[in-house]
Amino acid sequence: MKTRVCIIGAGPAGLLLGHLLRAEGVECVVIERQTPDYILGRIRAGVLEEITVSLMARLGLDARLRAEGLPHGGFNLADGERLIRIDIADLTGKQVVVYGQTELTRDLMAAREERGLEVVYEAADVALHDVESDAPFVTYTKDGTEHRVDARFVVGCDGFHGPSRKAIPAGVAKEYLREYPFGWLGILADVPPCNHELIYANHERGFALASMRSESRSRYYVDVPLTDRVEEWSDERLWDELAIRLGPEAAAHMTRGPAIEKSIAPLRSYVFAPMRHGSLLLCGDAAHIVPPTGAKGLNLAASDVHYAAEALTGYFRRNDAEAIAAYSDTALARVWKSERFSWSLTRLMHRFPEDGPFERAMQVAELDYIASSRAAQTAIAENYVGLPV
Amino acid sequence: MKTRVCIIGAGPAGLLLGHLLRAEGVECVVIERQTPDYILGRIRAGVLEEITVSLMARLGLDARLRAEGLPHGGFNLADGERLIRIDIADLTGKQVVVYGQTELTRDLMAAREERGLEVVYEAADVALHDVESDAPFVTYTKDGTEHRVDARFVVGCDGFHGPSRKAIPAGVAKEYLREYPFGWLGILADVPPCNHELIYANHERGFALASMRSESRSRYYVDVPLTDRVEEWSDERLWDELAIRLGPEAAAHMTRGPAIEKSIAPLRSYVFAPMRHGSLLLCGDAAHIVPPTGAKGLNLAASDVHYAAEALTGYFRRNDAEAIAAYSDTALARVWKSERFSWSLTRLMHRFPEDGPFERAMQVAELDYIASSRAAQTAIAENYVGLPV
Repeated sequence: MKTRVCIIGAGPAGLLLGHLLRAEGVECVVIERQTPDYILGRIRAGVLEEITVSLMARLGLDARLRAEGLPHGGFNLADGERLIRIDIADLTGKQVVVYGQTELTRDLMAAREERGLEVVYEAADVALHDVESDAPFVTYTKDGTEHRVDARFVVGCDGFHGPSRKAIPAGVAKEYLREYPFGWLGILADVPPCNHELIYANHERGFALASMRSESRSRYYVDVPLTDRVEEWSDERLWDELAIRLGPEAAAHMTRGPAIEKSIAPLRSYVFAPMRHGSLLLCGDAAHIVPPTGAKGLNLAASDVHYAAEALTGYFRRNDAEAIAAYSDTALARVWKSERFSWSLTRLMHRFPEDGPFERAMQVAELDYIASSRAAQTAIAENYVGLPV
Repeated sequence: MKTRVCIIGAGPAGLLLGHLLRAEGVECVVIERQTPDYILGRIRAGVLEEITVSLMARLGLDARLRAEGLPHGGFNLADGERLIRIDIADLTGKQVVVYGQTELTRDLMAAREERGLEVVYEAADVALHDVESDAPFVTYTKDGTEHRVDARFVVGCDGFHGPSRKAIPAGVAKEYLREYPFGWLGILADVPPCNHELIYANHERGFALASMRSESRSRYYVDVPLTDRVEEWSDERLWDELAIRLGPEAAAHMTRGPAIEKSIAPLRSYVFAPMRHGSLLLCGDAAHIVPPTGAKGLNLAASDVHYAAEALTGYFRRNDAEAIAAYSDTALARVWKSERFSWSLTRLMHRFPEDGPFERAMQVAELDYIASSRAAQTAIAENYVGLPV
């Protein structure tokens, strides 16, 4: 098969890019290792920035998002005693939308046929070749047969563990890594949320987050040592812990229910730079990971996809290679700012084993300062809704 | 001798408090271990916040400060390539005044006689007694004779090494300490400053600060390992290092000259809480130390003195003990915010040996973000000019 852009990965980033290119008449194909059902079974982020919402709107695929998504004009930081509300609507004139990544992916999947977006699912042994040249190609196996896709560009939207980033030879890129000494234990349950907006809590027993996917589905987290196993956390124990860490006000409104999903995820900050090598562009988790604090992961993938779509469209429609050459720098400028925000919010809201009384006092002082300063609240709010693209 | 308030230490904090109490008709005496000349020989801070300027104005002792002080409406952060100007006047409507601590102390000293402020210099072996009671007293030796001052309150303005804090028994207070893995090597020289506003630089070779005391006296710093000795740094070597770290633009305008003073000071964040024990109140460095980044030390002493003067005046003029009881909490609320600002600006502008490439990338990202965000600049500016008292 021959195409202009071969996209690796049919998660939200790959599908979004595919649709954006199709909408501009740029021929492309998406290659995915998993089945559609597998992808829809992954529980991920749930807070969309304006960039993500606006890309769905540009594609005309935002009907369900508008109908079912919950617009949020604020969120809360809790320090065990009080809620500090960050009124993002008032501070920035913008808002975020709570809408599960799974739902967004479902909407993008559902539009494949109508929009003529070709996606090859269950493609095994995906491999990238000659990415340094102007004629890269991708091979994969499906139903026992080996296939080859020739393209002018390959875009890696295949996440942290996918083959794309690994196709870039060692030595041409630099990796930046920070691992955190805890993981997030998450529970998804069909119960109404304890609060209409998110609550990030820094309690003396540790971090907690009260979040939601809809008005009847809640998502909660606590941080746990990396040595903990999910089997050690019965639903009961987890609800008890949440009630303590989120504080009495939230606990009073918390409805308990059986876990639909429960798992522990490690936290990591990671950047691979540059994000382009020859004819290969990386988008989203393939190039960078943020800790989930602040919900930047999916949104950062969306802004990468936006830049990549602009660059590829310019190349094929106006014969303009400049944005391709600039892609890595353009994308990384926003990536680094989101990495900084996710890292600093993680730093502020978690207890670190290496912290002494002074560092703990700095967390308290920062929360006190934020509570008292419109400028500090604005800085947090503008990062939370997403910095300009 | 019997008085109402015995102040330990005749540095700027002690003299300021003495004058404020005298102005309100509250009898007091200041006890100082050193000579006036020794105190005036200490080279210290040079940037005054509004609170400090306003206290001098309230005393009517600001004539020289107004005439000779340099109002600054901004300062700069440098990252080796560019200057990021924080336009504090535009962002906050306020400004700071560059005026040496030595000059401020000189003004307060000069007004002693006219205002009837009694200061005992060269008082040896100062000791505090019965501070938990309502009848504390202070003893000292002068000219071979032992003296005793009985007072209702004792206020420790005697710095980090003075006897006041040590008079509080172990166990009733908590200490918070963060030591930094470098010191500041400072040079004072009678040369015009390289820039009309301060420049804080984070260069790959380390930190540098271009500051000044007047239009003809400059103050520069670089950070050095704590193992360095000042003898290893000839003036020549130090000027060369400054020229590199401050960047080509500053270097081109830098005038070199012989050091009037050159020394290495360690950096420390320290808080002793509570700041009151019985009839003993602590002000300034006696209770807390900030790293010099951001120039909070003297200004924090001034806000402590403001709170202490209000509390003591209320006690003696309106028989109101509430502000005395609240003094520690009131002062600490502002202390912790200044500690946070000094710590975070130190963190942002220095290279730490424990930092890896990710942490360094976070510094770059934070400087990039600050350069692009009015909210982030406002948060820095409002801390720099001083948070509300």
